[in-house]
Amino acid sequence: MSTKAIVLLSGGVDSTTCLGIAVDRLGSDNVLAVSARYGQKHSREMKCSDNLAAYYKVRHEYLDLSDIFKYSNCSLLSHSTEEVPEGTYAEQQKSSGQDMVSTFVPFRNGVLLSCVAALAQSLFPDDTIGIYIGIHADDAAGNAYADCSLDFSEAMANAINIGTYNKIGLIAPLVNMNKAEVVKTGLELKVPYHLTTSCYNGRDKACGRCGTCIDRINAFRANNAIDPIEYEEDPFADLR
Amino acid sequence: MSTKAIVLLSGGVDSTTCLGIAVDRLGSDNVLAVSARYGQKHSREMKCSDNLAAYYKVRHEYLDLSDIFKYSNCSLLSHSTEEVPEGTYAEQQKSSGQDMVSTFVPFRNGVLLSCVAALAQSLFPDDTIGIYIGIHADDAAGNAYADCSLDFSEAMANAINIGTYNKIGLIAPLVNMNKAEVVKTGLELKVPYHLTTSCYNGRDKACGRCGTCIDRINAFRANNAIDPIEYEEDPFADLR
Repeated sequence: MSTKAIVLLSGGVDSTTCLGIAVDRLGSDNVLAVSARYGQKHSREMKCSDNLAAYYKVRHEYLDLSDIFKYSNCSLLSHSTEEVPEGTYAEQQKSSGQDMVSTFVPFRNGVLLSCVAALAQSLFPDDTIGIYIGIHADDAAGNAYADCSLDFSEAMANAINIGTYNKIGLIAPLVNMNKAEVVKTGLELKVPYHLTTSCYNGRDKACGRCGTCIDRINAFRANNAIDPIEYEEDPFADLR
Repeated sequence: MSTKAIVLLSGGVDSTTCLGIAVDRLGSDNVLAVSARYGQKHSREMKCSDNLAAYYKVRHEYLDLSDIFKYSNCSLLSHSTEEVPEGTYAEQQKSSGQDMVSTFVPFRNGVLLSCVAALAQSLFPDDTIGIYIGIHADDAAGNAYADCSLDFSEAMANAINIGTYNKIGLIAPLVNMNKAEVVKTGLELKVPYHLTTSCYNGRDKACGRCGTCIDRINAFRANNAIDPIEYEEDPFADLR
């Protein structure tokens, strides 16, 4: 019996920072990265996740969850009729009059965590396992993503713990950090942010204008750091 | 905006009783039955679920979750090397020395509930939805199925409610009943038990010897009722 970490890996800043933390704590041999195919528009996420798992020398598994979201019209999904919106989450909420933003994949973190718990218990029935998820305070702010809040992760942690005979716990090391603090933590751990992707538009270079690009740029700027990925227009020109 | 029920339907006694309760409360037009393909050995579950949805005149959807359980060696799964055991759950626990029984699909109820919550929010984003699940006190007894307990369903209900902007609740109408009381409730509601299936072996007639057959037979006998499905050896001969 040993202690293992399973890291939900999307290839973005938050989950990659989580992967860095898990490897730092337990070593590559005790870490499994899991990525999901859920019908997303872009294959970039998968390529980056592959590269990150290879960088950290951890085992990497995929789960195919696309059937679950087949009726969702979330703008991140390939079958959606919605365009990915521009502007911050707060601006989007103001213009729609709703908490939920169009990039909310219905109950995605609930689905991911449950499915990874099932996978974890299948692969390592005798081990104690921590599932690492990169939710942080900014994603939950204003309830844009209801399944990113501290309340949500505590309830889900409880359900997973009870439903797996107390073998699996949920670890959300970033839940009390804002995105700038996440990047600060990652920079200290030398997380390879040049291998990550965040942009909701999935073109060769990051658009710099969607909600997640804006957050990412601001988080690096708050650390007086230059984001190593390429943008269509350089948002760090003044710092170079 | 309206109130809808989504019923997790496996074609067994418990979920079918739940379907009967939901239709009784809300009417067929407001009820959706959802069944899952998760790699189970037998197609009987699907055929029975189809017949039950048709009987109750409710919309019926399937979710394909087989990729999630691909590494589980649970004896109910088609790729498993394990045989379905005979005897009651308590007998199985005694002989293995473990709480978990070999027919436990890892975190299945957590996965099912999360995935159905995602489906519900995709299909009915403006409605208030109750997800009905047929967990009951006997399944949780002795912790044979950790994901059937009252504690589990409360934690999961909480996670789903928070993670769906308070649009989706969990309803477990049988959670405080034992199986005999479930059957009593169903008989009063004229649930078509002749269309259901329970046996873990999935042959033409029920084996009468696996854990779930034993529970089912005892539940009907406790009500002085004859189970209308066919068994390989008639366990109700003395009552006819």
